[in-house]
Amino acid sequence: MAKERYFIGVDGGGTRCRVRLEDSSGRLLGEGESGPANIARDLTMAKRSIIDATNQAVSRAGVNIELSQIVVGAGLAGANIPSASVAIKLWEHPFEAIDVISDLHAACVGAHAGKAGAVIICGTGSTGTVFVNGVFKDFGGHGFLVGDVASGAWLGLEAIKYCLQALDGLEKYDEFSIALCEKLGANNSIDLVERSAKYTPSDYAALAPFIAMHANNGNKTANLLVAQATRYLQKLADKLIEDTQLPLALIGGLSQFYQSRFSQTIQARIVPCAMSPQQGAIQYIKQQIKFGEHEA
Amino acid sequence: MAKERYFIGVDGGGTRCRVRLEDSSGRLLGEGESGPANIARDLTMAKRSIIDATNQAVSRAGVNIELSQIVVGAGLAGANIPSASVAIKLWEHPFEAIDVISDLHAACVGAHAGKAGAVIICGTGSTGTVFVNGVFKDFGGHGFLVGDVASGAWLGLEAIKYCLQALDGLEKYDEFSIALCEKLGANNSIDLVERSAKYTPSDYAALAPFIAMHANNGNKTANLLVAQATRYLQKLADKLIEDTQLPLALIGGLSQFYQSRFSQTIQARIVPCAMSPQQGAIQYIKQQIKFGEHEA
Repeated sequence: MAKERYFIGVDGGGTRCRVRLEDSSGRLLGEGESGPANIARDLTMAKRSIIDATNQAVSRAGVNIELSQIVVGAGLAGANIPSASVAIKLWEHPFEAIDVISDLHAACVGAHAGKAGAVIICGTGSTGTVFVNGVFKDFGGHGFLVGDVASGAWLGLEAIKYCLQALDGLEKYDEFSIALCEKLGANNSIDLVERSAKYTPSDYAALAPFIAMHANNGNKTANLLVAQATRYLQKLADKLIEDTQLPLALIGGLSQFYQSRFSQTIQARIVPCAMSPQQGAIQYIKQQIKFGEHEA
Repeated sequence: MAKERYFIGVDGGGTRCRVRLEDSSGRLLGEGESGPANIARDLTMAKRSIIDATNQAVSRAGVNIELSQIVVGAGLAGANIPSASVAIKLWEHPFEAIDVISDLHAACVGAHAGKAGAVIICGTGSTGTVFVNGVFKDFGGHGFLVGDVASGAWLGLEAIKYCLQALDGLEKYDEFSIALCEKLGANNSIDLVERSAKYTPSDYAALAPFIAMHANNGNKTANLLVAQATRYLQKLADKLIEDTQLPLALIGGLSQFYQSRFSQTIQARIVPCAMSPQQGAIQYIKQQIKFGEHEA
């Protein structure tokens, strides 16, 4: 008797890995959450996080399921890096099968329930993709130092840069910079440089709610930074949907903040997410299996 | 019989340490050059670099001089960081005496031969100071990630950021971006991100001549970046000399490139450097000794 097949959908990012366990009819059986799963940054850790979260979901399901009965669709941060994508393929995993796409792609498939559409993710980082005819086209991203414009990390970094110029008397030293220094316990620019010297992108991004609040309260400096960010996101959105009729989903901690700042044309295209990235990853691997069976 | 006193002037930066050995009348006896001497980054290395370069200068002098006969004026990168400045003071050095100021301050004293004046240094990094009545006031700097606007490292980083947006179709992909990708052997944005992932500020700054050349040749993209840089330097220069009649010296690899881009008012204040930073460091310690003797 053939054993039943189950599905795991993975949403693996730089800080957390979330999985969803389904039976073949799509019924949720259990969920799990573990640590980082960025395969470009730490492959071994990513594999462990996937196994850990899967074991959690299985044990919560209360059904006797072996890993060899599970087909895994994994959306993983770092999968867009060719070397990382090759490395994960060599994994002697315990599952029936695994297919890895980027976390961005899983989110996009989930957002539009497997149909064509575009997403912009704006949280700690920022990036976008559009999915048409089974093909993804990515824009933006590129990481904290050289890209991820308008992201939380970008806003935080730009706020500190601005504040340093304000402390030098080269930009207006208004209540925004005063509040930022106070928030970071900095009395002068040397303090501010020392505080932020070891900041990770997440640490910078932790300043985003502060900047958003000041922007919403009408502070000019905060709105200057936000206007620069919005110009970029508007270009990104225009590029993603160009002359198509595709819907656009906004994902990530800053999506609500930016939503009303897009042009009317873009706002008219914005739709809520139909499904989670974990569901998107399962949806995607099911499409692949179907294609595979057709081809065979 | 009291032994003769000699002077060493040190100009210690992130990559090199240069010293000048003088007798008490100011006559050059020898020079030396060694490795990095940034006391905030690596204090042990900085001490070794100072000793190495000094020994070189002494051996080249062809005179029998003991280190205990030498008074050292040292302009060292990192001396503006309070913790580093305290740490170097604890050094059980072999000299008669040593006084440490920042490399920026030594350059400023040298540029104006000990008189009042301002300098802007723009090379791999960027920063400025003004020296009046024996007191320095610093502006700018703050390091690569959050400051150093208009520096070589800043120009290089901004060029790569721009190029990534151009490759995404969000900015104009013109001959500037084409040439930059070619220069870095990048065929796409993933290549470009991977190439630059391990770049140090010096690596980014190595792109500055490329950007300067394109700007001088009239390329719009290069001039867009340079215009942003120039706006900052202009603000910095205005702040440094404010309503004074002080002269301004420009130092560093990019000073000639930017000189003609300042306002006429600023250009009229620009003077060539009277002396080297090493001479400046000696000049400064001689002023300090004089003050000391007066006080005693």
